[in-house]
Amino acid sequence: MISSPDNQHLKTIRKLADRRWREKLDLFTAEGEDLVEAAERAGWEPEVLLVSGEDVDPPLLDEVSSLGSGTRVLGIYRRRFSGLGGELSLYLHGVHDPGNVGTVIRTAHALCDGPVTLGPECADPFSPKAVRASMGSIFARPPARAGFGELGGTRVALDSRASHPCGDVPRPAVLCLGGEREGLPDDVLANADVTARIPLREGGPESLNVAAAAAIGLYELRTCGARPTNAGAAPLRRMADRG
Amino acid sequence: MISSPDNQHLKTIRKLADRRWREKLDLFTAEGEDLVEAAERAGWEPEVLLVSGEDVDPPLLDEVSSLGSGTRVLGIYRRRFSGLGGELSLYLHGVHDPGNVGTVIRTAHALCDGPVTLGPECADPFSPKAVRASMGSIFARPPARAGFGELGGTRVALDSRASHPCGDVPRPAVLCLGGEREGLPDDVLANADVTARIPLREGGPESLNVAAAAAIGLYELRTCGARPTNAGAAPLRRMADRG
Repeated sequence: MISSPDNQHLKTIRKLADRRWREKLDLFTAEGEDLVEAAERAGWEPEVLLVSGEDVDPPLLDEVSSLGSGTRVLGIYRRRFSGLGGELSLYLHGVHDPGNVGTVIRTAHALCDGPVTLGPECADPFSPKAVRASMGSIFARPPARAGFGELGGTRVALDSRASHPCGDVPRPAVLCLGGEREGLPDDVLANADVTARIPLREGGPESLNVAAAAAIGLYELRTCGARPTNAGAAPLRRMADRG
Repeated sequence: MISSPDNQHLKTIRKLADRRWREKLDLFTAEGEDLVEAAERAGWEPEVLLVSGEDVDPPLLDEVSSLGSGTRVLGIYRRRFSGLGGELSLYLHGVHDPGNVGTVIRTAHALCDGPVTLGPECADPFSPKAVRASMGSIFARPPARAGFGELGGTRVALDSRASHPCGDVPRPAVLCLGGEREGLPDDVLANADVTARIPLREGGPESLNVAAAAAIGLYELRTCGARPTNAGAAPLRRMADRG
């Protein structure tokens, strides 16, 4: 039973609160039974697993926890990334909020077969907040890393200035979203195969939260169905902006 | 210029970090230029408005801020609630996370004409975190407060065990969502006019984040169009679960 705050595992866990250390050590933490079970279901072996009261003095585990008091279990895992792929997947550019990144990873796991690809300036998907927001989908479907130029298939850029909703597009397709304020950069918009918008009410907010936009965009794309890439570009379906 | 931490406004702001004080004083705070401007656009007069460096010593404003250092402006506002109504609106039951409540308020403002009605056990929509997540929609569209039994129109309960997506339902319609783990309580499900699910991939997560589910549910309902209540119950449209 670990009873000293100077224990090597506890020191590592403290370091892993910091993105630079997660990248340097190639490790991250997941806290709580739900996440540790999600890791196990997805076949991930923890590098270290600390159960409160069995492996470690409870106050010492609480002290290194990002959740605070009452943490029952904490695992250290090695980071993994997926390759690109899937008939439908997602690309994020400049999404700074780790809660949004984690929520998008969960949503993509629920709605599409490809990974969430993280482009430049995204929050770390392995931060405690992102891992928690993913509700375990980080294990079942680790994110990919790539720039926009490496994406294949039909690249659908969500942009509030576009004139159409996503409609039906040839597969494989990648839905591309930018950060809360900036949106997607001009070079991504210029090189996308389709630009599309989510129709919003007049007089309402200018934009949706990025996780809400990702959910609607994926739902729209999968509901509209798929056609193979070699069928050529599908006409965009125009939908009335009702509500 | 306020230069004492014992200033009455600063004392009030400290109290308003606490839900009980917000309810007792019927006030809440909004921080940052974006939110204060959103309040102004929506015609809200602040009870107190403190601009850093003009009305208050910057370190003193930072000390009472929920954002920490660098807060430029902080307003105290009187709470407001909307009445029920709208052709399409939302009802939340037991949504504990203030970030989700705020995000749902923003999404509803973007996608439907009615308010977000808060049922039992929801996070306070006037907490700093919820106000921030609403991105100002809390001012343009304050939430309503009511129990499920007070809702009128077609009550559409989202439930992962339901067999159909929302499809087309008679208006006015209220989309009802429960909290992350518990979902909607049995009495709500039993009394709903329609139960509907969001089709998720097999093998993926059991559920979506509540803000993602609200976004998709509202999008589905408004995209499927409206028909007047007196047309009677519309048949539920069955959609293939592709993706």
